[in-house]
Amino acid sequence: MKEKKISLAHGNGGVYMRELIDDIFASKLHNDFLNTEHDAAHLKLNNSDWAMTTDGFTVQPLFFPGGNIGSLAIHGTVNDLAVSGAKAKYLSLNAFLEEGLDITDLEIIVSSMAIAAKEAQIDIVTGDTKVLPFGHGGGIYFATTGIGERLKNLRLNHSNIQPGDKILVSGPIGNHGIAVMMAREAFGLSSDITSDSANIYPFVECLNALNTPEKIKCLRDPTRGGLNMLVQDWSRNTKLGVMLKEDQLPIEPAVASVCNMLGYDPFNLACEGRVLAAVSPELAQDVLQLWRELECGEQASCVGEFTCEHKQVVMETSIGGQRILQALEDEPLPRIC
Amino acid sequence: MKEKKISLAHGNGGVYMRELIDDIFASKLHNDFLNTEHDAAHLKLNNSDWAMTTDGFTVQPLFFPGGNIGSLAIHGTVNDLAVSGAKAKYLSLNAFLEEGLDITDLEIIVSSMAIAAKEAQIDIVTGDTKVLPFGHGGGIYFATTGIGERLKNLRLNHSNIQPGDKILVSGPIGNHGIAVMMAREAFGLSSDITSDSANIYPFVECLNALNTPEKIKCLRDPTRGGLNMLVQDWSRNTKLGVMLKEDQLPIEPAVASVCNMLGYDPFNLACEGRVLAAVSPELAQDVLQLWRELECGEQASCVGEFTCEHKQVVMETSIGGQRILQALEDEPLPRIC
Repeated sequence: MKEKKISLAHGNGGVYMRELIDDIFASKLHNDFLNTEHDAAHLKLNNSDWAMTTDGFTVQPLFFPGGNIGSLAIHGTVNDLAVSGAKAKYLSLNAFLEEGLDITDLEIIVSSMAIAAKEAQIDIVTGDTKVLPFGHGGGIYFATTGIGERLKNLRLNHSNIQPGDKILVSGPIGNHGIAVMMAREAFGLSSDITSDSANIYPFVECLNALNTPEKIKCLRDPTRGGLNMLVQDWSRNTKLGVMLKEDQLPIEPAVASVCNMLGYDPFNLACEGRVLAAVSPELAQDVLQLWRELECGEQASCVGEFTCEHKQVVMETSIGGQRILQALEDEPLPRIC
Repeated sequence: MKEKKISLAHGNGGVYMRELIDDIFASKLHNDFLNTEHDAAHLKLNNSDWAMTTDGFTVQPLFFPGGNIGSLAIHGTVNDLAVSGAKAKYLSLNAFLEEGLDITDLEIIVSSMAIAAKEAQIDIVTGDTKVLPFGHGGGIYFATTGIGERLKNLRLNHSNIQPGDKILVSGPIGNHGIAVMMAREAFGLSSDITSDSANIYPFVECLNALNTPEKIKCLRDPTRGGLNMLVQDWSRNTKLGVMLKEDQLPIEPAVASVCNMLGYDPFNLACEGRVLAAVSPELAQDVLQLWRELECGEQASCVGEFTCEHKQVVMETSIGGQRILQALEDEPLPRIC
């Protein structure tokens, strides 16, 4: 690594974070299961196929429209298992609590976790708590680890992706990032934008039910770094270009307004309840039809496709121009998950 | 809970921590697998028996004689699985890194993790990193979750414990707590005391090899709250008293000196490489003999026994008196793991 000190950019889902993970963690801890390009590790446990994933949560503030750090911690881990083709079953919970934290707030947050856990049909089976001195803890940090059984009809890997494959998104993007930013009362703005934080497993389950593993190439959830970072990863890993269509990106008008006002691109902002799928072109309409029948799936959309005509992520803009999108070095909104 | 705010005492392994865990986390998240009296959850995964555990690490300073937060994070989770009768196999790693952290320090720490993981024959299969703003992170916090296969010949549960059962400890107590305190350069003292941080699985494996599940009642590792808190837990859960013998407690002379000087009781200080076993009286000598042949097991000792003559934890002192030990409300040394 070129840098000598950790900076906030090392945590924001961009190229510095990738360098940190690859150069330090992956290079020293490497083994047959650790793959930093996947959201979860695939494990054989007594001859059955399981997946294991983990996530840390440091969102500020702890409460935001549409959720709080508790529900987010459940959704985040359930979703990482879902996009690796597994149904979450058991979770562990680590809580780092800051001295001075209001116990009523903690109770509300843990209750939200319990509701999210029940909805996702998972059990939190083990946990640990640590208390951090006042000023050191940001109120609460959580770490959750999940294990889940892999679905039989999904064998997801970006190496399956081919030119012509379509990129689908399950719903509007950017809500979580903007909702958290507004909850910080930044810029004196207010709105009724709510986070999309939710369990995306139903969107994966219906793909498994299609029983076409060869046509469903890869799934990911666009969290830190947003849709753009995810597509950049896919492009880099497949050595293919991606052509996105700006006018096909589902964006709620209120989110678009705030982004316009502040100069954000919604495709760089985190979602916490959306899934992106790379699928064979002939399957795209079937998937969209299934997704649009699900709760929060009404605006599912085909936003682009893979191409071998170039190696970059290019967006066809609404007015007919083309814009090359770059991998972010730094995220516009830190501490959103 | 009576308190309105989280205090440092809620993290120190004493009665406040138990109240926090029972009244908030366990009461809201309850399910068939979550048992706050055990170090790990027991799970059936495709008809085989597994255990899952998790731990957070916030030790200050990050480096101490005998280890650092990296090796400690591996040992802590491997050991929690070991005392639940399981051999750790796969771990997840969450890293919360503070802005400004020296990357060379991080490299040393992750290298120590890799060595500890190799020694314990486990793989770190998945991970996540978050960066916290300068001043908020204590340098590094880790959270590790482990899963492991349960050993066939151990069925550990404090409900098996009977009056007359012996309490064995695998080695000297108090080293970790004192080593970390000295590393803080508190009180201007210096010494060559090193932490006992280590993988205790070999001490459990040899008990499994005895193939006497009915005689090995319960295992625990005396971390936060030390040997005393652990024995208090056993006494409360079994509704039996415990008689400890002060002159049988293995304590290194240097640790005893520092404790005398500062008024600490070594049995209240954390170990990170010791195991306590409750076993049938007729098995006690066999276990001690096996343990004493293991590395760091030379000073294994029988330190007490369960009794139905009273309900408390009583220590027979070196000079022949009796002292009733209380459950700690607050730990003398916070942030030791």
